[in-house]
Amino acid sequence: MNDETFDILAFDIGGTQGRCGVARCGAGLPDGAQPTLGRLKAELRTFEFSTIHNFRRANGEDGPAWLRRLIESAKELCPSAPRFAAVSFGGPVEPDGSIRSMHVPGWENVDLTGAISAAFGLERAAISVENDANAGALGEHRLGAGRGCSDMLYFTVSTGIGGGVILGGKLRRGAHGLAGEFGHIVLDGSDGAPQYAAGKPGALEALASGPAMEREGRAALVRTGRAVPENFSAKSVFDAAEAGEEWAVETRARCVAQLGRGIAAMVCAYDVERVVVGGGVALAGDALFVPLRRAVDGYLPTFLSGKVKVLPALLGDSAPIMGAVAACLDKA
Amino acid sequence: MNDETFDILAFDIGGTQGRCGVARCGAGLPDGAQPTLGRLKAELRTFEFSTIHNFRRANGEDGPAWLRRLIESAKELCPSAPRFAAVSFGGPVEPDGSIRSMHVPGWENVDLTGAISAAFGLERAAISVENDANAGALGEHRLGAGRGCSDMLYFTVSTGIGGGVILGGKLRRGAHGLAGEFGHIVLDGSDGAPQYAAGKPGALEALASGPAMEREGRAALVRTGRAVPENFSAKSVFDAAEAGEEWAVETRARCVAQLGRGIAAMVCAYDVERVVVGGGVALAGDALFVPLRRAVDGYLPTFLSGKVKVLPALLGDSAPIMGAVAACLDKA
Repeated sequence: MNDETFDILAFDIGGTQGRCGVARCGAGLPDGAQPTLGRLKAELRTFEFSTIHNFRRANGEDGPAWLRRLIESAKELCPSAPRFAAVSFGGPVEPDGSIRSMHVPGWENVDLTGAISAAFGLERAAISVENDANAGALGEHRLGAGRGCSDMLYFTVSTGIGGGVILGGKLRRGAHGLAGEFGHIVLDGSDGAPQYAAGKPGALEALASGPAMEREGRAALVRTGRAVPENFSAKSVFDAAEAGEEWAVETRARCVAQLGRGIAAMVCAYDVERVVVGGGVALAGDALFVPLRRAVDGYLPTFLSGKVKVLPALLGDSAPIMGAVAACLDKA
Repeated sequence: MNDETFDILAFDIGGTQGRCGVARCGAGLPDGAQPTLGRLKAELRTFEFSTIHNFRRANGEDGPAWLRRLIESAKELCPSAPRFAAVSFGGPVEPDGSIRSMHVPGWENVDLTGAISAAFGLERAAISVENDANAGALGEHRLGAGRGCSDMLYFTVSTGIGGGVILGGKLRRGAHGLAGEFGHIVLDGSDGAPQYAAGKPGALEALASGPAMEREGRAALVRTGRAVPENFSAKSVFDAAEAGEEWAVETRARCVAQLGRGIAAMVCAYDVERVVVGGGVALAGDALFVPLRRAVDGYLPTFLSGKVKVLPALLGDSAPIMGAVAACLDKA
């Protein structure tokens, strides 16, 4: 690798949304310093996205068609040959880069690395694929709410609950690339615990994700004898709770307590300095974080209490694509 | 450090029991090879305990008195000056080696490292102090059921539930030396969940430790209208369950399910290759491990199911003192 700027083609491939962009690496270095790889790794702010295009998966569009569409757009975005490609993928990624998806049909036999390699004339080794929660964790650690800390957990709370683990400043993927599956810890072992998607009954994802909060809010509204408005969502619960409506305050408290219990459990497991919470639900701001911090502290043993900071993510939707580029630079 | 054999004075200081011994390092090397430090670290079987003495803390004996007694005995054991001292301590240990205890009074202001340093003329840097669950994890990893694997969790289930974490072959202590506090994850968030010692209500320790199993067994016996025998313990529950008594089969199943749920949660968090379970309760053998493996698998999401081995510890009571010596050699 020489000292010039170069491009990383980056993808964020989710179940419903996708993005692609070109990160110009080495641009924006302070005081005219030459960009070297070491420099890039130390100063990760020195990659810049010139453009990011956003896409929405069409109804019924399967994995291969969705990928073809993203690749075609990326070709327009990136007329010159990129040096590397970085992918954040919304599903489990094996250590060799192969993928699965629990939400989008047709991914089973797709060679994602191979398809990008063929489309852009890149060696397979120049392409890195990272699970989106891991990529998000890395993004927040290098550029967001986790900057400067050594040990951090990342929770992403939206349609589901995912997570990523940073230890000693490095992404820890686990023995099978599956570390940080926080949404799948079973926190409610009672009969009739709620179940969500492919998870076990009582899994954190079934208790505290966006859809779980929506479900609990609907039930609470129905109990009060009121009609459920159209487009009712987790956000409706937060909005009504902020307006002081009792059913919503209670629903929020119950769901946030479960999330707090899950976070506290992971703090007992990992003893990290920070927990960064991102995803759609985290956009609720203080309405989430004030009761959440209280819940986490309430479920920690006294000797761990007060030792961890629970912070909102800073990069929003961009954490995974930023983290994918960071992972690619780490790997290079 | 030269190539000769040397002694590590080792202590295992628990709340009710203590041990001290002298580990002769370098003894037992294969094919007459010279013991070097590198060799010792690679071949940890090459330390051997010539003697281990066992002690029981007297009723009401406080921390400082208990420590004085152990040190006096160690002086008799170890007439020549040891090169290092290794301690496994039954309570939280800060990164600087300072200690606390939740079960034994009088430890608060004890300088454990200083006391051993003064008694044996050792530099403070030659003394390593490790929490007993961490030491046990390291012992099992280097010499027991975790040998040869990279990522392992250790659960010790007896009076309480503790744990230790090995990642990439190394002990991971956490940001405050408190990683692996598995007994403190709150698995039962309902009102009136059982509470134990200093933990929060519904903590794993209150649901699946030896005393928890004893408590549940007593309650089950009382419900059947039978008298609770003298010396009733968790072992009584296992024995009666093996004999087919229904109250005991049910009690065992319920407690083992909770332990399995806790283990599964930590597998979701860490994605390790092996989980090693030690402590008094683990002595129940297949009567524990057969239903436990089924429970763990039942609480894992399908994509993690079957990926982790749940194994009984091999070193029994000796894991912490063995691990303390291993930690000392790692540090040297």
